[in-house]
Amino acid sequence: MATFGFIEYSDASPEVRAVYDDIMATRKTDWINNFWKGLAHDPALLQRIWNDVKQIMAPGALDPLVKELIYVAVSVTNGCPYCIAAHTVSARNKGMSEAMFHELMSVVGMANETNRLVNGYQVEIDEQFKAPVK
Amino acid sequence: MATFGFIEYSDASPEVRAVYDDIMATRKTDWINNFWKGLAHDPALLQRIWNDVKQIMAPGALDPLVKELIYVAVSVTNGCPYCIAAHTVSARNKGMSEAMFHELMSVVGMANETNRLVNGYQVEIDEQFKAPVK
Amino acid sequence: MATFGFIEYSDASPEVRAVYDDIMATRKTDWINNFWKGLAHDPALLQRIWNDVKQIMAPGALDPLVKELIYVAVSVTNGCPYCIAAHTVSARNKGMSEAMFHELMSVVGMANETNRLVNGYQVEIDEQFKAPVK
Amino acid sequence: MATFGFIEYSDASPEVRAVYDDIMATRKTDWINNFWKGLAHDPALLQRIWNDVKQIMAPGALDPLVKELIYVAVSVTNGCPYCIAAHTVSARNKGMSEAMFHELMSVVGMANETNRLVNGYQVEIDEQFKAPVK
Amino acid sequence: MATFGFIEYSDASPEVRAVYDDIMATRKTDWINNFWKGLAHDPALLQRIWNDVKQIMAPGALDPLVKELIYVAVSVTNGCPYCIAAHTVSARNKGMSEAMFHELMSVVGMANETNRLVNGYQVEIDEQFKAPVK
Amino acid sequence: MATFGFIEYSDASPEVRAVYDDIMATRKTDWINNFWKGLAHDPALLQRIWNDVKQIMAPGALDPLVKELIYVAVSVTNGCPYCIAAHTVSARNKGMSEAMFHELMSVVGMANETNRLVNGYQVEIDEQFKAPVK
Repeated sequence: MATFGFIEYSDASPEVRAVYDDIMATRKTDWINNFWKGLAHDPALLQRIWNDVKQIMAPGALDPLVKELIYVAVSVTNGCPYCIAAHTVSARNKGMSEAMFHELMSVVGMANETNRLVNGYQVEIDEQFKAPVK
Repeated sequence: MATFGFIEYSDASPEVRAVYDDIMATRKTDWINNFWKGLAHDPALLQRIWNDVKQIMAPGALDPLVKELIYVAVSVTNGCPYCIAAHTVSARNKGMSEAMFHELMSVVGMANETNRLVNGYQVEIDEQFKAPVK
Repeated sequence: MATFGFIEYSDASPEVRAVYDDIMATRKTDWINNFWKGLAHDPALLQRIWNDVKQIMAPGALDPLVKELIYVAVSVTNGCPYCIAAHTVSARNKGMSEAMFHELMSVVGMANETNRLVNGYQVEIDEQFKAPVK
Repeated sequence: MATFGFIEYSDASPEVRAVYDDIMATRKTDWINNFWKGLAHDPALLQRIWNDVKQIMAPGALDPLVKELIYVAVSVTNGCPYCIAAHTVSARNKGMSEAMFHELMSVVGMANETNRLVNGYQVEIDEQFKAPVK
Repeated sequence: MATFGFIEYSDASPEVRAVYDDIMATRKTDWINNFWKGLAHDPALLQRIWNDVKQIMAPGALDPLVKELIYVAVSVTNGCPYCIAAHTVSARNKGMSEAMFHELMSVVGMANETNRLVNGYQVEIDEQFKAPVK
Repeated sequence: MATFGFIEYSDASPEVRAVYDDIMATRKTDWINNFWKGLAHDPALLQRIWNDVKQIMAPGALDPLVKELIYVAVSVTNGCPYCIAAHTVSARNKGMSEAMFHELMSVVGMANETNRLVNGYQVEIDEQFKAPVK
């Protein structure tokens, strides 16, 4: 499927292959998942998104597993089946235990519930919560 | 504001006061934020939501700071201003540095972007990502 | 505010006044709320939306109060402060008790929570739930 | 599918079986739908969600059919295919006629349309709609 | 599939056939897509939605291709797979090049990212952006 | 407001000033809007987002006005008040007429309505709409 089909490594331009190679080297895998093969019809987009993902998901003030959990939380909230499937596997590979996953889901479910209760009860922001934070 | 107004401690029934007391004791604070004062018109709802939040946000396989970061990520994705303000302060109190916040925002922004790229490019799930995970 | 400002009755064209008159007559009120005064810059849009709202919200297989509750549920889920404020008042005027409001919120909160749990646990549709329903 | 697979009754712990039994007894059915079998990997989550659903969806100020219609409205707005399929069947079993379903869809569609018109025309809340409601 | 199944032309009432005929005549095609066949169980809804789509998507201040691009942008943001598939083909038929599609996706992705950054950084509206626009 | 406050030009580091200068030069304005002043606490994020916006919103296969309309469509669908206000002004500056705005809103409203009708009627994708498009 994919809007314009998938571009396999064997059919890719040198420009696209360079990104594919960097993805596999960075992730220490020998295959490219469909997301990148669908984007590859626009090499500039492919390059930009990969550069951003590579930089943003790297270790920093937050560790890579925490970043993956956040990615899953957003994807579950938005209802993106591909993203949920891909990042759940990713989180698992980075050390997410089954217990961690269940707690992640509990927090995501609760946050989605209370976000709506706040909306419905029309709760205004307490002075104490007004930004800027210190 | 709030749909039915706020219920202050001094006007609360013993049932509601018991929840308020537990909130303040658990959080080691001496005030109740508007969310609870808006919900308190339905004491059963107040009790249920507080019990759930207290249990879900407690230390477990994930630490409380990570849980707050996830709460912020969901609230930002849903666009709930109250929830963003409250949980950002909460995360700050639990140790979120400014650098952590920036990385959180970068991941949330990126996930919201790629969630839509996956939708638009109609990317189907790779066999390797199909659940159940092991 | 409003993108192009509000069009008051005294400044309205005969075409727009006719819609305003019908809104007030249908709702048995003597004022027009901001939504219509913001849309009135596009009289065709104003006319179409009012015709649709008037027809869809009228008594039918569902009674008007139930329809207002559904409107509130959607508006709370989408996070539209104006719509929540307006339709909560509307529901109140059509007979929504405070107890009904609390139950509405509980259902909306729960549905938003379980919608995300279904996403996160990647639950596939049971054969028994597959449409068409009988 | 499901992130960690499904737990069938025959493979369930006594704790999980007790929930399954209560679901079947409450609903007067002899099977368990996939949602619960996916959650059952976290018995505490399963128990909490079931208790909440059982209590919230019971008769109260709103009747159970109205609650199911609200559940469908939220699920349609969020775009959760499983939830839409399951709760449409549920509503049907509780007495939703085909005419009721069509009216439900008309209201949900209209509310989603007007929610966005309010956003785009940047309509501010009328004084008359400002909470608290009386 | 479809909640109540699809109504084919050969099984349709004269009222529904008249809408189907107008769809095919307007679009210069000889088939009806599933969306209309699913709605046709409610002839009044079918008629209303078709009238609206026909009028709104016609040439005006914006040309029909731009309108299709906007339709795709909304559908991608909401995550509606049917709508994305249908309106992408529609846009293609109205002259969307592959390069246009890639740029559309880049804008949609970026807008979804920055919408969330604005939320998370709690940015308040500049005086210069306050409506009404001139 | 803003989570960490705003960084004014006079208080900005040379790195941040360079971005501010490029924003003003590119847009031929002499002020910086709040979005950038809120992001500037993370200079790397500021730089990345500005580079992306500058490149993506430039003339290409789609003209800059069409891109702004798409930006508004996404922001209205997501309900981001800041983004709606800012990009509506931006579109206006790039030539959006009042008539174009009204048509944009009509399409966005309609798309949000039909996206939900598709969900609720559980419409499956026609073979003719299945990607890849040609």
